[in-house]
Amino acid sequence: MLFIFRFLRNDRLFILTNMPENQNNNISLLQSIDYPKDLKSLSLAQLETLCKDLRTFIIDQLSENPGHFGSSLGTVELTVALHYVYNTPFDRIVWDVGHQAYSHKILTGRRDKFHTNRKFGGLAGFPNPEESEYDTFSAGHASNSISAALGMAVASSLKHENKHVVAVIGDGSLTGGLAYEGLNNASSQPNDLLIILNDNDMAIDDNVGGLKDYLVKMTTSQAYNRVRNDVYQKFKKKNLITEKGKNFILRFNNSLKSLITKQQNIFEGLNIRYFGPMDGHDLKGLIRTIQNIKDLKGPKLLHIHTIKGKGYKPAEESATEWHAPGKFNKDTGERIINQAKDQPQLYQNVFGHTLVELAEKDKRIVGVTPAMPSGCSMSFMMKEFPERSFDVGIAEAHAVTYAGGLAKEELIPFCNIYSSFMQRAYDQVIHDVALQKLHVIFCLDRAGLVGEDGPTHHGAFDLAYMRCVPNLIIASPYNEHYLRHLMYTATYGNDGPFVIRYPRGQGELKDWECEMKILPIGKGRKLKDGSDLAIISIGPIGNTVTKAIRDLETKGYSVAHYDIIFLKPIDKDLLNEVAAKFTKVMTVENGVINGGLGSAVLEHFSDNDFRNIDVTRVGLPDKFITHGSIAELNKLCELDVDGIKKHIVNALKNEKIETSMT
Amino acid sequence: MLFIFRFLRNDRLFILTNMPENQNNNISLLQSIDYPKDLKSLSLAQLETLCKDLRTFIIDQLSENPGHFGSSLGTVELTVALHYVYNTPFDRIVWDVGHQAYSHKILTGRRDKFHTNRKFGGLAGFPNPEESEYDTFSAGHASNSISAALGMAVASSLKHENKHVVAVIGDGSLTGGLAYEGLNNASSQPNDLLIILNDNDMAIDDNVGGLKDYLVKMTTSQAYNRVRNDVYQKFKKKNLITEKGKNFILRFNNSLKSLITKQQNIFEGLNIRYFGPMDGHDLKGLIRTIQNIKDLKGPKLLHIHTIKGKGYKPAEESATEWHAPGKFNKDTGERIINQAKDQPQLYQNVFGHTLVELAEKDKRIVGVTPAMPSGCSMSFMMKEFPERSFDVGIAEAHAVTYAGGLAKEELIPFCNIYSSFMQRAYDQVIHDVALQKLHVIFCLDRAGLVGEDGPTHHGAFDLAYMRCVPNLIIASPYNEHYLRHLMYTATYGNDGPFVIRYPRGQGELKDWECEMKILPIGKGRKLKDGSDLAIISIGPIGNTVTKAIRDLETKGYSVAHYDIIFLKPIDKDLLNEVAAKFTKVMTVENGVINGGLGSAVLEHFSDNDFRNIDVTRVGLPDKFITHGSIAELNKLCELDVDGIKKHIVNALKNEKIETSMT
Repeated sequence: MLFIFRFLRNDRLFILTNMPENQNNNISLLQSIDYPKDLKSLSLAQLETLCKDLRTFIIDQLSENPGHFGSSLGTVELTVALHYVYNTPFDRIVWDVGHQAYSHKILTGRRDKFHTNRKFGGLAGFPNPEESEYDTFSAGHASNSISAALGMAVASSLKHENKHVVAVIGDGSLTGGLAYEGLNNASSQPNDLLIILNDNDMAIDDNVGGLKDYLVKMTTSQAYNRVRNDVYQKFKKKNLITEKGKNFILRFNNSLKSLITKQQNIFEGLNIRYFGPMDGHDLKGLIRTIQNIKDLKGPKLLHIHTIKGKGYKPAEESATEWHAPGKFNKDTGERIINQAKDQPQLYQNVFGHTLVELAEKDKRIVGVTPAMPSGCSMSFMMKEFPERSFDVGIAEAHAVTYAGGLAKEELIPFCNIYSSFMQRAYDQVIHDVALQKLHVIFCLDRAGLVGEDGPTHHGAFDLAYMRCVPNLIIASPYNEHYLRHLMYTATYGNDGPFVIRYPRGQGELKDWECEMKILPIGKGRKLKDGSDLAIISIGPIGNTVTKAIRDLETKGYSVAHYDIIFLKPIDKDLLNEVAAKFTKVMTVENGVINGGLGSAVLEHFSDNDFRNIDVTRVGLPDKFITHGSIAELNKLCELDVDGIKKHIVNALKNEKIETSMT
Repeated sequence: MLFIFRFLRNDRLFILTNMPENQNNNISLLQSIDYPKDLKSLSLAQLETLCKDLRTFIIDQLSENPGHFGSSLGTVELTVALHYVYNTPFDRIVWDVGHQAYSHKILTGRRDKFHTNRKFGGLAGFPNPEESEYDTFSAGHASNSISAALGMAVASSLKHENKHVVAVIGDGSLTGGLAYEGLNNASSQPNDLLIILNDNDMAIDDNVGGLKDYLVKMTTSQAYNRVRNDVYQKFKKKNLITEKGKNFILRFNNSLKSLITKQQNIFEGLNIRYFGPMDGHDLKGLIRTIQNIKDLKGPKLLHIHTIKGKGYKPAEESATEWHAPGKFNKDTGERIINQAKDQPQLYQNVFGHTLVELAEKDKRIVGVTPAMPSGCSMSFMMKEFPERSFDVGIAEAHAVTYAGGLAKEELIPFCNIYSSFMQRAYDQVIHDVALQKLHVIFCLDRAGLVGEDGPTHHGAFDLAYMRCVPNLIIASPYNEHYLRHLMYTATYGNDGPFVIRYPRGQGELKDWECEMKILPIGKGRKLKDGSDLAIISIGPIGNTVTKAIRDLETKGYSVAHYDIIFLKPIDKDLLNEVAAKFTKVMTVENGVINGGLGSAVLEHFSDNDFRNIDVTRVGLPDKFITHGSIAELNKLCELDVDGIKKHIVNALKNEKIETSMT
């Protein structure tokens, strides 16, 4: 008969069970673990069972409720080992990008809420300090863990707190300059930071760059591995493996490695003690190694190897596809893709196809993406023109300056970066492109609300932070055809920097294909006449406005609609026309309200002495917006059809409404 | 008798002279070199004379017209070697930070204009593509050269142009994440980029971090140097030093080094061939080495050692002081410091003293600066509390995230970054601090126009790009006392992120000391009543406004003046009061006009249905502003007393004026 018996002794919880092996998706051991303290007294066999339970649980959950699958399965053993060895939340684990942190969430009081992961009102998909004290730092953008953890470790040292701090960073994140700046600075102040390099030879797409090759070489050096094993066996036979002995072997292995392999160790070059590489799925090895090195003084790095999707065959075999696979049949490994026929294409795919179409006819066109070829469909160009497509790794700043260099030599780079990640390259846009008026075409993907990835990923700020930069042209397409026209216009209608922002997800049209044309720069268009109110919108949210206006027309409202297309230069003639005809104007944008389109319109009206115009600015509020489906978030922010209708009705009642958010 | 004889043969200029040695500041050889083509036919002895001439010229010029002295003297031989070996401007030299590029400017058509360096209307202090085709990329912010040059090199390779591309980067700049991202990406695409690492063990202040130690170790390895010399001598004796032989030695030395020193070579780890280290003042050696490696395929790095201030004893001995020493007596080495007595202190020093004062009383207070301890006077705190002051190197992004980590553990970091460099850490402000509401106090030094450093360095955009970020408090002090009050308020009157921006240079008061107090967050103050017009200003430019108002009062104008202090949250009561009393309002800010204070005021008036108010927004135009003295630039932008007066008079004439810039 199976039993699980939990009891307290000396304030610690002990669990006895005769069920070390997990059978038939039974996850009763995991069900008994609410917090990390509950696993302190488990045996190694039980901890191994717990790992199996975690995998079963994650596979079960994510097959129904989509999330970041591959990375989560890769860090099961590491997470169990860390929470077993360390005293969290007093000790700090800083996860780099939350993709890896699902097991961590499940073991820290959130197992029973995990089915709400990434859902509106539910758990955040990334570590979130507001959600749990076990989540130490926000972790939506890559490469920040070393810097943040170093700050914590130095603070702990200054305060004599003896708090352990661990940063867990993937090899993909390690290509970001911020991670390097952290590494370079790690040895400058007293601290005992442990960095765990979770090396799965992957970012979301294949990892790229010199460092990746370096890490591979470091691991596959035959000579080193052979000798390491010999030495270990020798020590083992001689019963030298006391605690001291283990420590000695670890250190010895390390110098041995540099002796035998002649590999250059970047980390030791930066005064960070290096341990590894070791198998990140060897729970016993992980626990022992971390226990051995955790109290060593000074910054140190443990290099572990893991497999994305570990324990789920289809995911192990195709890591990029299974990074975030959506729903799937957990028994067959079949991914459930619900795209109905005749649905509009993704904006991403329209971008991808159009780029290939342009590149086919013009050799000067090249593509640059920082580690997001699948996400932004730059992969289409990479397939057709591999030598003219550059995935530069998680390195947004470099992507922009590199594009500047390409443009300097008269190539025409399309530099495709998610809007929220472009924040990483703001100075490069200003200093390396705009100042020099270089012909770089920035395609800001995932502009506006992005949905389940939440506050770290919403492309909320780009309109405002780009508008203040001189020399930029900034535009957003009303639909797929306009995306194509803008890409064409940026290429042939202009020879300076050009920003095109478009959202994540499906477009508006059944047939996205059309002949491309050059749009007049800085010229908007009238979509519809009206008499009560004029709405000026930018980008695809204009379609929501169109629907709202249509709905209200049946109730006797007469609303004009202008698609401004260009935020900068703004269409002065259009605004003058609006100002001459209307006393009520509304601006609508899928971006933060401070400093964006609404502000630009107010500035124009003020500068040109159009007073007496009642302007209602509709956009995202001056808050970080939570996660949820895009539809739910649009509703929350009153940017859906109903929200826009409400704004219109209120404006015509001469009553302002404040976007009320909970 | 001395002679210099210039003649053309086969379209090349030849110069004969019997004067290889430079005497008594005679720089006649340099006088004969207008462009790089003119030095192609010089003998080595002549090239060495040219180096002496360049030093003499730079010392002469900079003793009268201040500039970046130390770095310029350090790269004389390198510059001559590069322009001798390469075919510029077809071949591309990309300088990282212009400090090192004075010799380059002097040798590329700008010798006779060099006395206008950094002056209004004169040469830019940094390479500037608008100024010369020999300046390939803008180079005011550090660490961008590798990425930009890589783009050029890959473009050249794609276009089969056989163009050589060289990036010259200092060891200080190499601590920036962007440089690392470039290095990591360098081997991913076909290119023959040469990176020259100009290692003088310095940024502006001492270089810091693991990499610095690493470079030092790499060079001082005795075993390696001894063996290298032995091998070289052996080859030399055996007459093996043909072209092939030299190449062989170079390569052999390289593997020898890793064999002998067991040093890990970071660059080779990133698949970049490494050559060096070598003496960067050995002109002959430089020319030969560069000639030897320039046609090698693939990315490569040549590590040279130079001395900042080389050839001018006082500068060699005190590199930080002589980075940009101001005027000096070239014969005695005495620096001419013209600060009259009873002048106001620099804002920087008030910040520095106040930080020490706060830190003395509160152990939680720590300081973070990315490589600017002298510039921002964080050096005061470094002296008093070295263990609580962190110079993290040229690594703005890390500085911010690291400060976030410190704040997470309840320390209170003052993170001091130049406004224009904060563009480098924009995402970190949003993602790593604002989102989590961490108690980090950002001190944006050199906000607004900075003067001679020009468009790359003006802190023009911060008000606009910060205002759109949720959770930030943004303020700017009217004078030194308010700087102190704001620092105190940010510490004790608030527990979230707080931005304080203040300008470069002298404050307003003779006595900056005062008791600090907590200001109410988001509350401005009325400085002066008036009836015709209300001016709302932010920051020290309010003092200019005060003077303008005073001048105009004698002519019967009655102008009210409000110091808003906080851009965010903006003082709604104050704005409501203004709106109730005035129909004419003017906003004045030392920042770009799009999206800043003026826009915030328009937004408030619009959102609260105050129409019929004539608002004039005064600030920096939507252009990159050139270099010159701050006074000249304020005049140019109509932000001096006369400019403000003109704006007031025009506003009261009900005529708007456009800031007209040439």
